[in-house]
Amino acid sequence: MTDFWKDSPALAARLERVLAVIGETVDDRGFPLREAVAAAAESNGKLLRPALLLIGSSFGRGADPIRIEKLAAAIELLHVATLFHDDIIDEAPVRRGLPSLYASVGVKKAVLSGDWLFSRCFLLSSESAMPENAKGLARLIAAVCSAEISQDLSKFSYSASVRSYLRTIAGKTAALFSLALHAGATEAKAGAQVAQTLRRAGYDIGMAFQVIDDILDFESEEDVLRKPVGKDIAEGLCTLPLIYAIEADGPGMAAILAPGGSGGEPVSLEAAAAAAARAAELGGLDRARADARRFTTRAQREISRLPASTAREDLARLAERLLRRAY
Amino acid sequence: MTDFWKDSPALAARLERVLAVIGETVDDRGFPLREAVAAAAESNGKLLRPALLLIGSSFGRGADPIRIEKLAAAIELLHVATLFHDDIIDEAPVRRGLPSLYASVGVKKAVLSGDWLFSRCFLLSSESAMPENAKGLARLIAAVCSAEISQDLSKFSYSASVRSYLRTIAGKTAALFSLALHAGATEAKAGAQVAQTLRRAGYDIGMAFQVIDDILDFESEEDVLRKPVGKDIAEGLCTLPLIYAIEADGPGMAAILAPGGSGGEPVSLEAAAAAAARAAELGGLDRARADARRFTTRAQREISRLPASTAREDLARLAERLLRRAY
Repeated sequence: MTDFWKDSPALAARLERVLAVIGETVDDRGFPLREAVAAAAESNGKLLRPALLLIGSSFGRGADPIRIEKLAAAIELLHVATLFHDDIIDEAPVRRGLPSLYASVGVKKAVLSGDWLFSRCFLLSSESAMPENAKGLARLIAAVCSAEISQDLSKFSYSASVRSYLRTIAGKTAALFSLALHAGATEAKAGAQVAQTLRRAGYDIGMAFQVIDDILDFESEEDVLRKPVGKDIAEGLCTLPLIYAIEADGPGMAAILAPGGSGGEPVSLEAAAAAAARAAELGGLDRARADARRFTTRAQREISRLPASTAREDLARLAERLLRRAY
Repeated sequence: MTDFWKDSPALAARLERVLAVIGETVDDRGFPLREAVAAAAESNGKLLRPALLLIGSSFGRGADPIRIEKLAAAIELLHVATLFHDDIIDEAPVRRGLPSLYASVGVKKAVLSGDWLFSRCFLLSSESAMPENAKGLARLIAAVCSAEISQDLSKFSYSASVRSYLRTIAGKTAALFSLALHAGATEAKAGAQVAQTLRRAGYDIGMAFQVIDDILDFESEEDVLRKPVGKDIAEGLCTLPLIYAIEADGPGMAAILAPGGSGGEPVSLEAAAAAAARAAELGGLDRARADARRFTTRAQREISRLPASTAREDLARLAERLLRRAY
């Protein structure tokens, strides 16, 4: 955490306090798995979402710092709870370089730990947020679940359109980035126009972030993201670089992804890696990278409309850094 | 539903409106599995928890009926969401006589459907409840998850004490009954003393309800509860009748439950049925039934302190009926 935020020392110091709130929230003596959950919640995430909330809150003057830090902790816990359940869904052995909670404690306890964390998150948010933001958080989880299920329903068809892809990542990623910046601003009583600008910037940063994440699946060395190249493809996901590759050469990609000709079947890790390599040759990565660049440029344009401040600089730098992960 | 409440026509009419709110809440066009979730949420449950909330609200005069019906729907949806996740945890093929959601749509979608429903429930409760009750609901889910995990952690040891059993069922069942009556009362601005009396009555009704549920596992015909006799025992649970049977003849019960002598192992359905039969012979069912009777008597004493009204009669009749399931 500290390393990622070393250029923003004031923000880093506040994130340390958010981590402390996370620790206190998870340290419920009535909950038998609090240690395993605490280890996962405090592991080496970048705390992006709480950072966005804190940045958003800096654009107002009315923020009670303790309430803001609680709400920032709630947003991170919400994210961690969805990761617990995602890892069950993906049968993921590893998360952030550690065994996933699912792998350590099994399906049952991972389901219940996620539920428990959702409830702690709602409790924190109802203690710290304005009613409108507490409702926004609840709506957001519903949207995330809808997006995840839509994605799951189309698995292995490799037939997503750019439009349906963008809708899915808007629901599962950009909406939370957007909510974090906007809720921070409204909690701190920032002006309506500033809050709207932050909402749009958060959306664009989130869209770029997810496109980049999906690009990294095509090119990462295993030791960087700690997962094999083409893992998303092997899991049946049709992300942006693959969509562009299929646009460029549908029959060629189908021959790699569904050599039997039927489709709808699981794809081997080898075939997935071959598809990833071919997608790169077909320019799918370059086109996706250009889209991520475009979302980031849009975000930067929004950010430039905000009043000048350290927070504005932090946000502009963050948007650029998240993009650079795949450059 | 209608049949169970036929002696309380006014309550039955309001429960129909709660069902309508449940239907509207679940009918979110953005959610791909809304039909499967709606079928489960509207299936033939007795709507006990919303009924308790409505009864509680009848002891005040300040209730906005629409808000109360929304909160009643939220409490039922919370219950349904926990059932979705319970069925994953128990790998249950059947729920309320229909294939469980888990069995129809698989683990992944059942996890996400439960999460989605939790979020809809929080949204409804933050729209309709006083902040204190919205927080109470969040705390309650945390307590339910803690109780479920504690129960899971001690599975197959068959070594629960009466005390730990009572603590578990208080967390997983009685707390919600108690909250429903109390929240109904406070939302309707009932007096503090009436609300406290309802809270205690709800707790006792919930405790009796769960003890009776656990007794039914020892004696039900398959066609009544649609599950085999001794299913809880086969799943490693040590409920009250079994605890009493082990108190009466520990070595004898151990010989049935862990013939290899080691314990901690899964138990066959045959061994579980044999253990259930032997527990009955040892008086375990009679002692558990006496406890359920005692909780119900305590509840009736609390109920008799409430101001006379149709709601008081409904509640007294309900407590007695829930007890009679195992008489």
